[in-house]
Amino acid sequence: MGASGYSGEELVRLLLSHPHVELAAITSRQYAGKTLAQVFPRFAGHPRARALRFIPPETQALPKQIQIAFLALPHGVAAEFAQPLLELGCKVIDLSADFRIRDPEVYKEFYAHDHPVPELLGQSVYGLPETYREKIKTASLIASPGCYPTSILLPLLPLLRAGLIKSSGIIADSLSGVSGAGRKAELDYLFVECNESMRPYGVPKHRHLSEIEQELSLAARTPVTIQFTPHLIPVNRGILTTLYLAPEKHFTNAAEMFALTGKITACYQAAYGDEPFVRLLDGDALPDTKNVAGTNGVEIAWRLDGRTGRLIVMSALDNIVKGASGQAVQSMNILCGFPETSGLA
Amino acid sequence: MGASGYSGEELVRLLLSHPHVELAAITSRQYAGKTLAQVFPRFAGHPRARALRFIPPETQALPKQIQIAFLALPHGVAAEFAQPLLELGCKVIDLSADFRIRDPEVYKEFYAHDHPVPELLGQSVYGLPETYREKIKTASLIASPGCYPTSILLPLLPLLRAGLIKSSGIIADSLSGVSGAGRKAELDYLFVECNESMRPYGVPKHRHLSEIEQELSLAARTPVTIQFTPHLIPVNRGILTTLYLAPEKHFTNAAEMFALTGKITACYQAAYGDEPFVRLLDGDALPDTKNVAGTNGVEIAWRLDGRTGRLIVMSALDNIVKGASGQAVQSMNILCGFPETSGLA
Amino acid sequence: MGASGYSGEELVRLLLSHPHVELAAITSRQYAGKTLAQVFPRFAGHPRARALRFIPPETQALPKQIQIAFLALPHGVAAEFAQPLLELGCKVIDLSADFRIRDPEVYKEFYAHDHPVPELLGQSVYGLPETYREKIKTASLIASPGCYPTSILLPLLPLLRAGLIKSSGIIADSLSGVSGAGRKAELDYLFVECNESMRPYGVPKHRHLSEIEQELSLAARTPVTIQFTPHLIPVNRGILTTLYLAPEKHFTNAAEMFALTGKITACYQAAYGDEPFVRLLDGDALPDTKNVAGTNGVEIAWRLDGRTGRLIVMSALDNIVKGASGQAVQSMNILCGFPETSGLA
Amino acid sequence: MGASGYSGEELVRLLLSHPHVELAAITSRQYAGKTLAQVFPRFAGHPRARALRFIPPETQALPKQIQIAFLALPHGVAAEFAQPLLELGCKVIDLSADFRIRDPEVYKEFYAHDHPVPELLGQSVYGLPETYREKIKTASLIASPGCYPTSILLPLLPLLRAGLIKSSGIIADSLSGVSGAGRKAELDYLFVECNESMRPYGVPKHRHLSEIEQELSLAARTPVTIQFTPHLIPVNRGILTTLYLAPEKHFTNAAEMFALTGKITACYQAAYGDEPFVRLLDGDALPDTKNVAGTNGVEIAWRLDGRTGRLIVMSALDNIVKGASGQAVQSMNILCGFPETSGLA
Repeated sequence: MGASGYSGEELVRLLLSHPHVELAAITSRQYAGKTLAQVFPRFAGHPRARALRFIPPETQALPKQIQIAFLALPHGVAAEFAQPLLELGCKVIDLSADFRIRDPEVYKEFYAHDHPVPELLGQSVYGLPETYREKIKTASLIASPGCYPTSILLPLLPLLRAGLIKSSGIIADSLSGVSGAGRKAELDYLFVECNESMRPYGVPKHRHLSEIEQELSLAARTPVTIQFTPHLIPVNRGILTTLYLAPEKHFTNAAEMFALTGKITACYQAAYGDEPFVRLLDGDALPDTKNVAGTNGVEIAWRLDGRTGRLIVMSALDNIVKGASGQAVQSMNILCGFPETSGLA
Repeated sequence: MGASGYSGEELVRLLLSHPHVELAAITSRQYAGKTLAQVFPRFAGHPRARALRFIPPETQALPKQIQIAFLALPHGVAAEFAQPLLELGCKVIDLSADFRIRDPEVYKEFYAHDHPVPELLGQSVYGLPETYREKIKTASLIASPGCYPTSILLPLLPLLRAGLIKSSGIIADSLSGVSGAGRKAELDYLFVECNESMRPYGVPKHRHLSEIEQELSLAARTPVTIQFTPHLIPVNRGILTTLYLAPEKHFTNAAEMFALTGKITACYQAAYGDEPFVRLLDGDALPDTKNVAGTNGVEIAWRLDGRTGRLIVMSALDNIVKGASGQAVQSMNILCGFPETSGLA
Repeated sequence: MGASGYSGEELVRLLLSHPHVELAAITSRQYAGKTLAQVFPRFAGHPRARALRFIPPETQALPKQIQIAFLALPHGVAAEFAQPLLELGCKVIDLSADFRIRDPEVYKEFYAHDHPVPELLGQSVYGLPETYREKIKTASLIASPGCYPTSILLPLLPLLRAGLIKSSGIIADSLSGVSGAGRKAELDYLFVECNESMRPYGVPKHRHLSEIEQELSLAARTPVTIQFTPHLIPVNRGILTTLYLAPEKHFTNAAEMFALTGKITACYQAAYGDEPFVRLLDGDALPDTKNVAGTNGVEIAWRLDGRTGRLIVMSALDNIVKGASGQAVQSMNILCGFPETSGLA
Repeated sequence: MGASGYSGEELVRLLLSHPHVELAAITSRQYAGKTLAQVFPRFAGHPRARALRFIPPETQALPKQIQIAFLALPHGVAAEFAQPLLELGCKVIDLSADFRIRDPEVYKEFYAHDHPVPELLGQSVYGLPETYREKIKTASLIASPGCYPTSILLPLLPLLRAGLIKSSGIIADSLSGVSGAGRKAELDYLFVECNESMRPYGVPKHRHLSEIEQELSLAARTPVTIQFTPHLIPVNRGILTTLYLAPEKHFTNAAEMFALTGKITACYQAAYGDEPFVRLLDGDALPDTKNVAGTNGVEIAWRLDGRTGRLIVMSALDNIVKGASGQAVQSMNILCGFPETSGLA
């Protein structure tokens, strides 16, 4: 549902070449009647893309055999489709923020209106496979997290769970490619306005803070409030996040620093050593979004700073793959019992 | 001296159209004998650029009438030229870091070798006009600060001087265009390696920290250590810095926040209200490097965050104008008694 | 009139720092009431930009003292304003295509509607200073040519006038930066749609052919029809045109090729040797848009190909300076008796 | 052999995920001893990339089981490796130009030295699958064509074979992404030198003309000389070629134009209707490199121009996939009897 935005397009790309998936229907009000290949010429090499036509986004128009429905719709719109789709017996994977917040009050605070189907909030599973893999296996409604949350949560959750960093004073400084703004005809996202430009936006209270803080608080077992500054950068794809953290136990000499280094290494190794998509960089390597572009991978590196006593953690991912559509496919793989890397290698 | 790098080229651009300057000589070992117009076709419209030829970087080769010498040479090389030029009676404006550090020990710590002419360190003036305008007027050796220091110091110095923020725990997260890496034929700076890439580098101890912390400590009247993370971004020009700061007096309610807002506004207004190149943004505006590209301007905006109690300050400037060559010309204007905006409007 | 598009913005940039101009009024329906500095923060360093407010685009709202009116309005809209402005006693410089076509029939063929004020067509002067300098001096209505025509006409006109090339079979292959599409909120010009994209458009009959062929025919003294293919390229600014031409006199050996080389050199030297903005490249140099970006300059180079017998001519200019606003200012300088390079150096 | 350039890297990307291939060895003098994942972090998600180490480019160092050797070496270097590899019993697929020219005299004219192993020239097959599929099946040495030749030959060969266009007067105007220049640390290809730049180069005699004209001449059964102008454009990937052609039979009215339209449609349909990687665009669609980036696809569209009588054909492909490594893998698939799209979908 909603296959004409950047996330929808990328989802289609992944599903078209997924070995265990048949793409049964794609919806778009704007493009209804056109084939996938007409709207996105890059898919024209796939026979399925030349045959499959967009249909209007209406539940009753969907073919009967659908088992999984992906919602790549604007925030607020996705919520309307979940209930009818669930009633049809579909599993639903929602790429919007509509079902990511557990508490309807928090939802209202950040999104400025009541949640339309609050009874579904308790039923949804936050679709971050590295954290909720077991719950995803049996979920019927998956709220797949977006790019900023994924780039912030993956590096932070293991440290908070292990009590290695203070849960207060966390700062996340993030850089996003322009596809993160969606395929919207607005002046701010014109080529000439973005090229040769670097700019912060949404300072200081970005709405994605709500889900980020929800998940951090669960990991820390205490309410967590973070500082988050997103910036718009002239690349098509990518999120680069730099986190500024205070170790729980302050180090004051080389021996303590060495000990802490060992603990952090072990913590990340335990959390992600076997994860197929998380890459812990070693040696001098630092994350670079070009290394993850077009893939479902996440690069993470960290440094202790002996001068300031801080821990700096950096992550890079592709905002429309691991930060959107790849993550949703990863959840689908888990849900369906496919190898987790199917269609994502 | 050294007119073939990006700073040198920009300096030439500014000096060619400066109403009170005659460009007497340009040096480059590599291009000696060629005209300025041959090496930089963009200047070919200037008659002077078609006539003036590069000479080797040797003090004795310089014409006699030179009154001001700019050094746009690599760090370490500039130091060798200062003394002979001063002995010729020139005023020297150095764009490298060679004379920015007052303490030879700090220089050695960050640059890993002894300073070649430590006796000149005491004589040089740190060429940040907004702070050292009076000293610049009578200086003979000006150490013109670079892009990262300027983008960090301008927003921070007034707050530290006024005691409005804590001097500990300061974090500076900076984004730089690729010209900041210089005109060097290295794989890391190839188009294909930078385009569609975002990456941190030099984490956690960048050498420019030495001068930044020196100036912050002077403003705070106490030693200041900061956290600084530079990132490489695919734009030609620009520095965007986001600063995370703790107000000296914590605010706990709207009234206190309102009061602090007034103080910060007044502090910046007093510091920069009359400055020709510093623009304090108001309303919803946030800095954007495209607004300062090609100019000597700096944009500064700030936000208090009621959720975290922090002050976020953001600055944008052109790394090779206000962050290098424009700043050097601004100092020259002051030194020579020209209107400060001459050749920079 | 119409200062909120890319040409309008660039015109404002040039006029703000022009030594002989006072910017009296700027119009924009959308931004009426806002200051220039609010809409374009990059101008905020100019006191005039902080004071001057946009007014609605209505002739009667203009201040009385206006002597020159620039029209940077969409094609078709500009025509409505010319007559009333002329009646107010203004000189009018129109950056649109509305008054560039002499023959109302040709206008109708390419623009698909009757010209609204055909009686003004005979009165307007085609504002290409290198060709019509004398007429511009006494014009009251100047139709300033745009980017594609300028990049094609400047290299071609001298060759056609001198009879050095055949007037048939001319091919112009042009590459344009995205600002050429204007500041329009359309999907096609979003950053993500343009970045990492190269594409032809408007094949085979672009509407600017009408004025290009009109001027070529005048130079050749015979009707000229050319092949023209524009392409959209991910740069902010610039036009690069490659022309494929047949020498009038075929060369069959080195001596004839040498002789023709001499004639072409002499032809271009006679036409442009004294022109302040046209640069004839020599040696191995070929045009590059980065050498003219932000300036009113045009780079031209050419090669005879001994294998094919063709003459290849290449030109580069900045589409919103020499291809729009700089050219209009150049005409204004001529019209007002200012030095032709005033405000454009 | 030679896996550290852009073609080599892309070849590795394709071979790592190819269902019928095991990547047995990779060579690089510079990186010998390092793992593939260390040199190219983007492959670190593949277990094979973390295990496989670069070895020096020496035939005797290769593992015994190698069946296919790809040469992604600089022109001139590849030739030295072909003979020893063939003697080892390998099939050789060479991505350089070393074995593309049949006539040693032509090779010498364009490459300025004698061919080192002229006896192999007769043995090699020009690896353009759409033309030489049958010969590729049984070849032992395949000279895989590069980006410019592929983008020019695919649209031209069917028209020439069918006698629909004149073989004289052909013009090819091509735009290339910067990866086409290779991973070379040269000033010309720095980000700052390429970004915001558009420029022709190698005018008028590019060395790839030799193989292009060889293949065109074979198709036309008469010697063909073409005009070719390459341009460097700031994108990572892509070739966009615009061809200016004269129909063999001039059309003078709508009926003739309609008839010719039918013939060209039929010609292309016959040539490429069943080709898996060639997409003949219909309707208003024109080629765009972003539609083929990262894929082995080629987009082709054409227009007859009633005003000039010319046929304009445009093609787009990814210079390092269909223009290099994807094409080589396509040939390997044919050679090995795999489905032709294996590893390329």
